[in-house]
Amino acid sequence: MKFSPLLDELIQSLRCLPGVGPKSAQRMAFQLLERDRKAGLKLASALSSAMSDVGHCQSCRTYTEETLCPICASHKRGTSSTICVVETPADVLAIEAGGHFTGRYFVLLGHLSPLDGVGPEELGLALLERHLASGDVAELILATNPTVEGEATAHFIADMARRHKVMISRIAHGVPVGGELEYVDSTTLALSFNGRLPL
Amino acid sequence: MKFSPLLDELIQSLRCLPGVGPKSAQRMAFQLLERDRKAGLKLASALSSAMSDVGHCQSCRTYTEETLCPICASHKRGTSSTICVVETPADVLAIEAGGHFTGRYFVLLGHLSPLDGVGPEELGLALLERHLASGDVAELILATNPTVEGEATAHFIADMARRHKVMISRIAHGVPVGGELEYVDSTTLALSFNGRLPL
Repeated sequence: MKFSPLLDELIQSLRCLPGVGPKSAQRMAFQLLERDRKAGLKLASALSSAMSDVGHCQSCRTYTEETLCPICASHKRGTSSTICVVETPADVLAIEAGGHFTGRYFVLLGHLSPLDGVGPEELGLALLERHLASGDVAELILATNPTVEGEATAHFIADMARRHKVMISRIAHGVPVGGELEYVDSTTLALSFNGRLPL
Repeated sequence: MKFSPLLDELIQSLRCLPGVGPKSAQRMAFQLLERDRKAGLKLASALSSAMSDVGHCQSCRTYTEETLCPICASHKRGTSSTICVVETPADVLAIEAGGHFTGRYFVLLGHLSPLDGVGPEELGLALLERHLASGDVAELILATNPTVEGEATAHFIADMARRHKVMISRIAHGVPVGGELEYVDSTTLALSFNGRLPL
């Protein structure tokens, strides 16, 4: 037995969300129908305008519906001479939550992965090279994830940036604050020794 | 820092879904924007038509956009003399998945809960009484959940149904198939002894 066509379609459509299986989709549909149809309608309109209108910032490639994202459009940060390269827009948010970085970003929207057909072109590296060639950039901070693909991407970008007169740095790998040495993996420990700083 | 207004609104709106917190909402929004905008648009239209058009079956109160749900509208089952009372439309689906029940349903859309302002009126018991008074009903199966509220609701409905000439039954409580006695709680075990059947 199935529900009515509209309800079936709603449950089926909800499954496009990551981590939502048949049971969760059913629960979500019932919850919205039962408790909060207004919120459901609001979600529908938010979804449809975001899917149609959100594009990429022409300077840093993060998601925005304007030509430039708020950071690139800001007078103070948009012309900063420090660019931080990250993999995803969520990484921008994580760094911004700290509030210590005052430069601008460049969002790769992925990492190099030749098997999946993701090369330099898909990561917008031509745009990044134009930024570097403009002479406005003094330092490039590589903040890709400390994974195999992230490291490979960082090295590829570093090679590219060396052709321009730019200082290149990689964020430090080491023991996270609040972590206990006993439970940190050996690779991280080794990196924390290699990256030790004089006191 | 925040994202662009449209993206912020999408992330905020996604949080109306049960079990979706700020991080999941962000992941969902990025996943849709990055991978599957078509699915996002389809979800938006499914949501908006379901929220506006889905109402209740006039006979059994389950969700449907028609006057009658598929079961009540079916020639064979819609006039069945057996009515199974359940708490939610999801319960209908669970019973239908078994395929053994061929009667019709009555969906309470909740259980008696005076503190939350849910009384007989909210559960549509007047409609159920009209079904019983019509003389077309031979048996009423009470399949509310085996919780305190579910039991109270079942007893309340049973009292009401006794005024009409209707056989009233409650689904059996006992050891679930595939379960092991060792791990079954004592109340369930006691109920399974009380409800034992002659072989």
